[in-house]
Amino acid sequence: MKKIILLTGFEPFNKETINPSWEAVRTLQGWHEGDFVVHARQLPCVFGQASKVMHQAVEELQPSIVIAVGQAGGRVDLSVERIAINIDDAPIADNQKRQIVDQPIVTSGPAAYFATLPIKAIVHALREAGLPSSVSQTAGTYVCNHVFYSLMHQAHEWGTTMRAGFIHIPYLPQQAAAHPGSASMKLEDMVEGLRIAIRTTLAHDVDMREAGGVTH
Amino acid sequence: MKKIILLTGFEPFNKETINPSWEAVRTLQGWHEGDFVVHARQLPCVFGQASKVMHQAVEELQPSIVIAVGQAGGRVDLSVERIAINIDDAPIADNQKRQIVDQPIVTSGPAAYFATLPIKAIVHALREAGLPSSVSQTAGTYVCNHVFYSLMHQAHEWGTTMRAGFIHIPYLPQQAAAHPGSASMKLEDMVEGLRIAIRTTLAHDVDMREAGGVTH
Amino acid sequence: MKKIILLTGFEPFNKETINPSWEAVRTLQGWHEGDFVVHARQLPCVFGQASKVMHQAVEELQPSIVIAVGQAGGRVDLSVERIAINIDDAPIADNQKRQIVDQPIVTSGPAAYFATLPIKAIVHALREAGLPSSVSQTAGTYVCNHVFYSLMHQAHEWGTTMRAGFIHIPYLPQQAAAHPGSASMKLEDMVEGLRIAIRTTLAHDVDMREAGGVTH
Amino acid sequence: MKKIILLTGFEPFNKETINPSWEAVRTLQGWHEGDFVVHARQLPCVFGQASKVMHQAVEELQPSIVIAVGQAGGRVDLSVERIAINIDDAPIADNQKRQIVDQPIVTSGPAAYFATLPIKAIVHALREAGLPSSVSQTAGTYVCNHVFYSLMHQAHEWGTTMRAGFIHIPYLPQQAAAHPGSASMKLEDMVEGLRIAIRTTLAHDVDMREAGGVTH
Repeated sequence: MKKIILLTGFEPFNKETINPSWEAVRTLQGWHEGDFVVHARQLPCVFGQASKVMHQAVEELQPSIVIAVGQAGGRVDLSVERIAINIDDAPIADNQKRQIVDQPIVTSGPAAYFATLPIKAIVHALREAGLPSSVSQTAGTYVCNHVFYSLMHQAHEWGTTMRAGFIHIPYLPQQAAAHPGSASMKLEDMVEGLRIAIRTTLAHDVDMREAGGVTH
Repeated sequence: MKKIILLTGFEPFNKETINPSWEAVRTLQGWHEGDFVVHARQLPCVFGQASKVMHQAVEELQPSIVIAVGQAGGRVDLSVERIAINIDDAPIADNQKRQIVDQPIVTSGPAAYFATLPIKAIVHALREAGLPSSVSQTAGTYVCNHVFYSLMHQAHEWGTTMRAGFIHIPYLPQQAAAHPGSASMKLEDMVEGLRIAIRTTLAHDVDMREAGGVTH
Repeated sequence: MKKIILLTGFEPFNKETINPSWEAVRTLQGWHEGDFVVHARQLPCVFGQASKVMHQAVEELQPSIVIAVGQAGGRVDLSVERIAINIDDAPIADNQKRQIVDQPIVTSGPAAYFATLPIKAIVHALREAGLPSSVSQTAGTYVCNHVFYSLMHQAHEWGTTMRAGFIHIPYLPQQAAAHPGSASMKLEDMVEGLRIAIRTTLAHDVDMREAGGVTH
Repeated sequence: MKKIILLTGFEPFNKETINPSWEAVRTLQGWHEGDFVVHARQLPCVFGQASKVMHQAVEELQPSIVIAVGQAGGRVDLSVERIAINIDDAPIADNQKRQIVDQPIVTSGPAAYFATLPIKAIVHALREAGLPSSVSQTAGTYVCNHVFYSLMHQAHEWGTTMRAGFIHIPYLPQQAAAHPGSASMKLEDMVEGLRIAIRTTLAHDVDMREAGGVTH
C-alpha cells in the first residue's frame, strides 16, 4: 500500500476570490510517484473549523506526511515555517466574521511545536531547483498558524511518526496585479515547489544542518 | 512594409550570469503580428557603449517604437518608467569596471525626458492581463537610465515620431533563489508583458489618464 | 545686510493633524548665524496655491537659498531630492479635495530641473553629524514635487543666483506610533538636519562628488 | 525593601562600535520610583556566556521583573517580543566567532515560552506616549532569542513569580547614518520607552486584550 501524503490549502479570505494555496494543492490531488500518493483537502479560513477539517482528514487518511499550505500575501518566496505557536491573535476577522484575540489554541497545550519536516533540506532543494525559498521564523497568529499548531499538537498527542509542517506561499501574479507593491509567484512554480518539498521530506529522515536563521 | 519595433535587453552585470531583460527580449526576436515585426538587440552594461549600440540600432532599423528593458533586482513587478534623467551616478562599477559619479549623460542636454510610450495604458493593460505592474518615477542613475536618456535625447534631436521608453523587470526565480528576500517573475510572464506593452503602444496614440503617481 | 534663507514647510494633509515639515521649519524662523537669517513660511497642501505662496515669498524675500521641506511618511531618513519633474499625478486628493492626474505643472516647461543645492555635500555632512540621510532620485508626483518644480522653474526664469532644493523628512515618532511599520525621526534631529543643510549649502558653491545613485 | 527590576543590554556586535540596548539600559541604572529600583547589566554577545551572565544576575538580584533588551538593526520601532523559541540558528558568528546552527538552547526544554510581560499593554502605553511600538512574533534565532529563551526557562524552572520578556530596539540615528535605508530612534526615546514598559508591567498583573497579531 502506498504512503499517503496529505496536502491542505485554504479557501479564499480577506476579499480575495482565489487562494493560491488551494489552487496549488488541488493540482497535486492524486499525484503519485514511487510508493506515495497525494491527497488534497481544502480547509475553511475559520478558526476552529479549519483545524477540525484537518483533524478529520488526518484521522481518515493516516498520512505519513502532512504539508499544510497557506497564502502569505506580500511574502516573496516559498517560506517553510519553523514553528507553530499556541495563540490566536487575529488582525482581521475570519470567514465566519470572528476575530479572536489572544486565546490559546489548545488550553494548557505547550507554547509551541517545531515543524517535523526537514525544513532546511527543503529550502536547500527548492533553491537548487531555482525556486526562491527561505525558512520563516513565524507563521503569524491567524488561521494558518492555528491549523499548523493544531496539526502538530494532534501528531504529538497521537505519538505518531507522521511528519508535518507548513509552507507559506506568495500571491499569484493575478492577485499581485491588484495589490501594487506585492511580489508574486506563478502557480506552476508553487506546484513544483510542493513536489520538491514532498520528495525532499521522503529523502531526509533527518534534516540537513545549514544556517537559515536571523539575528532578529 | 512592416513597422519595426526595437526591443533591447542588457548583458548580465553585477555578478549575475544571466540578465532577464535579454532573456525576455531575445525570445521576441522576429515576433510579428498585424503590420509590425520585432527586432531584439543586446546592449553591453557599459556607460557610453550601451547608448552607442542603441543609437546604431535605431539608426539602422528606423523603428516606430523602442522599448528598452532592464533588470531591476528587488523590484516586484513590470515597472514602466516615466522619466529619464540627465545624470550618471553609479553605485557600482559597470562591466568595464568604470564607476561614473555625477556626470551628465549629454552635456548641455535637458535635465530629463518623459517616456513617449503610453505608460498608464500599458500598466492598465498589464494588470488587466493579470500581470503585476506599476508606473515607476525613477529609472535610477545607472546604465539603464543612461540608455533610456540617450534614447529619448536621440529621438528628440531627430524630431522623429518614434515613440520610446523603458521597462524595468524583476529577477527571474532562479536569480531570486540566490538572493533571499527578493521578488521574482517567470520569464514567460515577462515576455507576455512585453507583447502587451507593444500592442498597447500601437493601440494608444495618446495615453490614458489614470492615477499612477505617488506622494513622495 | 544679511543673506536670507527661506525655509518652507507644509500644513498637515492626508488625515494627519501635524506636519513635521512645518514643525521643523517654524522652529528655525529667525535663526541666524554669521551673515544669514532664516525666514520660515508655511505652504498649503494644495496644487497651485502651494506654488503661489512659494513664489510670493521668494519675490518678497529675495532669498539666497530656498529649501522646501515636506513630509514623506514611511521614509527612514532626511532625503535630499535630486530632481523635480514637470508632472502632477496625485494618488490622493489635496487639501482642496482636488486630485490632479497627469497634468504638467508648467505647460511647455522643461521635463525637469535638478536641485541647485549641493545635495551630495549635504548628505555627507548629515551622516558625519550622525543623522541618517540619503539622496533621493524622486520627489514623487504630488504637492511636494509640484512646489519643488515650480520653485526651480521660477529660479530658472529669473536667471537668479538663488540656489534651491527640496528635503523630504520622515514621520515624527508620535505619527509613526499611529502608523505601525513606519520609521520616524525626532523633531530636534530634523531641525538640526536643516541647520546642517543650510551651513553646508553656504560652504559649498560646488557640490562634492560622491556616489549617491542607485542601479534602478 | 524595594522591588528590583533587572534590565539587560548587549555589548556591540556585528562590526558596530555601540549597542543601543546597552546605552539605553545603562542610563536607567539606579532609576527608582515608588517601590522599585532598576539594576542594569551588560551581556556579552556570545552564545552560552550571555545566558550565564543573565542567570547569575537573576540569581543574585532576585528581580520581580526582567526586561532584556537587544538591538534589531532595520526594525522601525520598540518591538515587544511575544515568544522565545528553543533554537540557536545564527546567520553570523557571535563575538567569540562561533556560529551555532540548529542546536536547541536547552536540550529537552520545551519548544518555546511566551513572555510573561503584559506585551499588549506595553505596546498600547508606548503608542499612547507617542512612541512607535508593536508586538513582534519572533525574536529571531540569534543571541537575543538565546538569552530570552534561557531567561524564561530559568523563570519556569524556579517556579518564580518573576515576570520577564524581551524588547527589540532599532538602530540609533548615528548607526543608521552608516546603514542607508535603515530606520532609527533617539536614545532618549528608547530610555523613555523602557520606563513606560516598567511602569506598565507593574500596573498590569494581567495583560490587556487588544489585537496585535499578523496574518502571516
